[in-house]
Amino acid sequence: MSDVPIEETTRFAPAFGADGLIPAVATDAADGRLLMLAYMNEAALRKTIETGEAHYWSRSRGELWRKGATSGHVQRVVEIRTDCDQDAIQLVVEQTGPACHTDRRSCFYRIVETPDGLKLIFKE
Amino acid sequence: MSDVPIEETTRFAPAFGADGLIPAVATDAADGRLLMLAYMNEAALRKTIETGEAHYWSRSRGELWRKGATSGHVQRVVEIRTDCDQDAIQLVVEQTGPACHTDRRSCFYRIVETPDGLKLIFKE
Repeated sequence: MSDVPIEETTRFAPAFGADGLIPAVATDAADGRLLMLAYMNEAALRKTIETGEAHYWSRSRGELWRKGATSGHVQRVVEIRTDCDQDAIQLVVEQTGPACHTDRRSCFYRIVETPDGLKLIFKE
Repeated sequence: MSDVPIEETTRFAPAFGADGLIPAVATDAADGRLLMLAYMNEAALRKTIETGEAHYWSRSRGELWRKGATSGHVQRVVEIRTDCDQDAIQLVVEQTGPACHTDRRSCFYRIVETPDGLKLIFKE
């Protein structure tokens, strides 16, 4: 064991949750824009590291998912980053086509109207 | 009930997980850079909407947490966004000081060395 705290270690030790998943945020290598948030299990992270293409764990389908496998909207991974506590992943990607399954560039295409917080406004 | 799918509705209906939490990603309003990933429960999201300052749920301390309450590194919320499935939140923020508790601007200051995936390289 090392005395180096998790924030300062050079050892990659991703902290998967009790469900075996870690959240992964994809950002665009071109301009840093937030594209999507998905989840990885250990196999998805390993495949991403090995192949340089983003793989996730689909919680809805319950399966390993190579991003763009059916749509062609693949993500070539430029950098894999982790955060201070190593309980989140950032993928800096070259995104082919839109990242979102709705054919929008980013999944975050709606703004919460304040101060009510009841309605959404579409704005990409 | 409405027939409008979750991706196209204007009704904000955030999907908290079984643990009552939703992941929230903060990005810098100035340049779009990814700053941090944390979690919100319903109270944290409501406080964020009401006050215009980022609030999170601290999983380690088990308490509602106004970002910057002790450090002064507050986040003024410019936009609150949600994603296609409404199971993630994006906060576009004006960040006072560094976002990370390690005094780095972003929490994602380490890159995973490939193809081994064992080591981290510090690079902000």
